[in-house]
Amino acid sequence: MGEPGRALTERHCSPHAKLLRGDQLADLRRLLPDWKVADDKQIVKTFVFPDFVKALAFVNRAGEVAEAEGHHPDLYLAWGRVDAKISSHDAGGLTENDFILAAKIDRAYFAG
Amino acid sequence: MGEPGRALTERHCSPHAKLLRGDQLADLRRLLPDWKVADDKQIVKTFVFPDFVKALAFVNRAGEVAEAEGHHPDLYLAWGRVDAKISSHDAGGLTENDFILAAKIDRAYFAG
Repeated sequence: MGEPGRALTERHCSPHAKLLRGDQLADLRRLLPDWKVADDKQIVKTFVFPDFVKALAFVNRAGEVAEAEGHHPDLYLAWGRVDAKISSHDAGGLTENDFILAAKIDRAYFAG
Repeated sequence: MGEPGRALTERHCSPHAKLLRGDQLADLRRLLPDWKVADDKQIVKTFVFPDFVKALAFVNRAGEVAEAEGHHPDLYLAWGRVDAKISSHDAGGLTENDFILAAKIDRAYFAG
């Protein structure tokens, strides 16, 4: 945790992020309560939309964020819905990068 | 099956497509052997890409096809991969529409 006081959306993903443990993970989860932890290895959230085109537009905005951060979510696009899954596969679980990406994807959702 | 002699990519999805049974289904499966039938209710195929951006570009091309046909796949985008699932939910299984959409999504893949 570099700078806990700084908003997640102001940070950037780092190639050196370490696996989160205990309190570190709990602190970040509190910042993004809408994202659920699954299997202790990923955070997931479902975004809803009035139609397919708007869901697809969100996938593009999230994709732009992912490319900028060099960290990529899995995005399951269905009619009117996108399920996002974020994990740090290389680290074998959750790192701060995942929460930074999640916060920026949230911001991209509300920017739509 | 309206016009079996015509290529799937030359047809369009119809709101009146009926659930496929027996030989009808077998005939269409032979036209698209790379698509696998799952649970008797959907056809699925994985498309691979050298990076995230190219996979996302394919999602957009497939999305354009879907909008044009008024029939939408589920598209699971991950780094370098897109899993496509197609089903006619309203009909409760597979119709000719699913194979028409699949053939056009295949074409969109090779157009990338």
